[in-house]
Amino acid sequence: MKTLPHVVIIGGGFAGLAAVQALAKAPVRVTLLDRRNHHLFQPLLHGVALAELSPAEVAYPIRSVLSKQANATVLLAEARAVDAENKKIALGDGSELSYDYLIVAAGACTKFLSDDWAKYSVGLKDLDDAVEIRRRVLLAFEEAERETEDLERREALLTFVVVGGGATGVEVAGSLAELSRYVLAHDFRNIDPESARIVLVHGGERILMEYPPEQSAIAQGYLEKLGVEVRTGTRVNELNAQGVKLGADAFLPSATIIACAGVRPTPVIDTLDAPKDKGGRVLVSADLSVPGHPEIFVVGDASSFLHQGGQPLPGLAPVAKQQGLSAAANIVASLYGRQRSNFHYKHRGSLITIGRSKAVANFGWLRLKGFTAWLAWLFIHVCFLIGFRNRFVVTFLWFWSYITRQRGSRLITGQRMNAGPLQKGSTQ
Amino acid sequence: MKTLPHVVIIGGGFAGLAAVQALAKAPVRVTLLDRRNHHLFQPLLHGVALAELSPAEVAYPIRSVLSKQANATVLLAEARAVDAENKKIALGDGSELSYDYLIVAAGACTKFLSDDWAKYSVGLKDLDDAVEIRRRVLLAFEEAERETEDLERREALLTFVVVGGGATGVEVAGSLAELSRYVLAHDFRNIDPESARIVLVHGGERILMEYPPEQSAIAQGYLEKLGVEVRTGTRVNELNAQGVKLGADAFLPSATIIACAGVRPTPVIDTLDAPKDKGGRVLVSADLSVPGHPEIFVVGDASSFLHQGGQPLPGLAPVAKQQGLSAAANIVASLYGRQRSNFHYKHRGSLITIGRSKAVANFGWLRLKGFTAWLAWLFIHVCFLIGFRNRFVVTFLWFWSYITRQRGSRLITGQRMNAGPLQKGSTQ
Repeated sequence: MKTLPHVVIIGGGFAGLAAVQALAKAPVRVTLLDRRNHHLFQPLLHGVALAELSPAEVAYPIRSVLSKQANATVLLAEARAVDAENKKIALGDGSELSYDYLIVAAGACTKFLSDDWAKYSVGLKDLDDAVEIRRRVLLAFEEAERETEDLERREALLTFVVVGGGATGVEVAGSLAELSRYVLAHDFRNIDPESARIVLVHGGERILMEYPPEQSAIAQGYLEKLGVEVRTGTRVNELNAQGVKLGADAFLPSATIIACAGVRPTPVIDTLDAPKDKGGRVLVSADLSVPGHPEIFVVGDASSFLHQGGQPLPGLAPVAKQQGLSAAANIVASLYGRQRSNFHYKHRGSLITIGRSKAVANFGWLRLKGFTAWLAWLFIHVCFLIGFRNRFVVTFLWFWSYITRQRGSRLITGQRMNAGPLQKGSTQ
Repeated sequence: MKTLPHVVIIGGGFAGLAAVQALAKAPVRVTLLDRRNHHLFQPLLHGVALAELSPAEVAYPIRSVLSKQANATVLLAEARAVDAENKKIALGDGSELSYDYLIVAAGACTKFLSDDWAKYSVGLKDLDDAVEIRRRVLLAFEEAERETEDLERREALLTFVVVGGGATGVEVAGSLAELSRYVLAHDFRNIDPESARIVLVHGGERILMEYPPEQSAIAQGYLEKLGVEVRTGTRVNELNAQGVKLGADAFLPSATIIACAGVRPTPVIDTLDAPKDKGGRVLVSADLSVPGHPEIFVVGDASSFLHQGGQPLPGLAPVAKQQGLSAAANIVASLYGRQRSNFHYKHRGSLITIGRSKAVANFGWLRLKGFTAWLAWLFIHVCFLIGFRNRFVVTFLWFWSYITRQRGSRLITGQRMNAGPLQKGSTQ
């Protein structure tokens, strides 16, 4: 075994897992590094944030996935820096790991525009984020219920600002609206959760820029029907513990600000000596390798691949998966002295859900909306969830939510439980 | 409404919820105070700690349970102190709440014998505890996998000490043994999870003192068959970040110490001016009220009720439920000027599960063991879980675990993720 080439893969997301699995029969030793012990099914993460799903229903232990792949080792560790010259990776605990081939599939994290954003808003990129959003949202309703004197504070507690009109922001706003309109509607005595104000702020001229304009309009219609205020062409000019200032408007008091406006590659990418785009993503060659380093590949959200010479590919699960497979295939090609292939992305379609039974889908040759699109969304996402168990439970929970409008994961947990939003006399 | 008597209930556990629901048709206003937003089904908490179940599967939002009970209000707040003279409760945020009748159903928390216990061991009383145990246990295996040089440290990481041979300790030890023997068995490359050492330490002469001696012996046999070392008549004389000292034995290096040895009433009980037993529990009158304060009742784990003049009742869900109902009935009796009833506990039986398919049950007229007892345990616990949804999901998950020996909730999450057990150069 010692003499086999060592392939190290950083990150057990869609790209990394696809690459490991594609190398199952290759004459290599594979080490998958991840700082989490689970693969996260990010497309359903908003379900955890809005109390529809439990963390375990959208996450799966990486070790279980790779349990039977004899040439793969999983290491729970953080990759701190890549030393391309010496083909080594510095790990979080100070040790080092050597590689012959490296696939960096480290993904992205929330890009906070300033320290204020990091301090007063919360992003949605991992399970801890999702549980934190769930905690803040549920706690805001609880605090509002208790606030019987200061009506302005109560209003601020019942005002939720979602920043970013991309897929994540739209799904969060839609799910949050349903939570307040239906799920919590009859559970409080002093407040009316239906009166909660949900504002979706988007800098661009229309939400969901990656869809055709007509579909953006349909999605916006669905949101507005759920009571979401959609503010396109608007920027957040200021935010603090009391709320936000939108464009030239008066200050909007709000206790809960959810930042879905942008992502940036995880910090380990910064240590990689390679050409990058403005967003910090690595400008990879046609075979997904780093220019000048044919033994290093960057795939998934941290990679900037110019599709057919034009726009860089978006940070989507199908892109990540296909890139992971392609990088693995190119390593195998090099091992056998064959020519590498250029990456070519096959776009199969985009789907997004808005609330309980509405969605828009664009498969190019077919556009769907409403309930039909929602069924397609449900079917496709459940199919891609790893593991029969999660598939079964998730389907059942959805069916259950659909019938009862209940949500089963309404838990406020965690260390910071007593540090609620807008605590009296606190700036946190 | 304003003129109706105000009944305040502290705690939404088995006792508190039963009391609120029993007052649904009484001419009172009811306020249920809890510092958590969920009712916790404690008998299944060990399932969360050992990655079998998700937190949401054993917890249910209190507001949902009481959504349709018009005379009940739920308040997410911590009761700090009871001022029995002025009939007021001081809340965590500095405000006060007046009552006409008070039912204290505040439950119990882990009793740490010293600061060292609080620092180096973890108890199992709420969801945060369970998630923390899950994190420590899974992380210990991960760290052991990475520890290829210091074999003593690896052994300490793979040594788990469970302190306390009551129901909780036995269930935790059994489930932990199954986790290492079956669930994780094939997922690691450098370590053999089956070699993990699980030591159950118990001060008494036999585990499960509340069962007949023959059943204790059967349970101990089940544990030993799973590979658990059962050490009865043994005390932990010392513990620190490196491990424990058991009786007169040599020091046993261990990274994970789980304290299931005892509980104490939650701190609010300390503020109640009432006669208490050695454990700090309130010695209640025959009608469950506090001597001298007929308007205050203490029920559940915080109450010490001498059963038929003899032993105090144990801290079990059925005791709590029956006491909650009885206290509510006595309030109703007082409202209508009727005579109060003395509490009489009806014991229906005890059950405990040891691993995947073994249990012991004692219904008095019927004793069960093995698979039959396990089926009875499963059936009874699923029946008592609140909400059809949880019932269905839990049944499915058990069935699934039973067939596949997989566990679906193997997540390491939370703030303290990088502060693993036995970190090099750390005493945490």
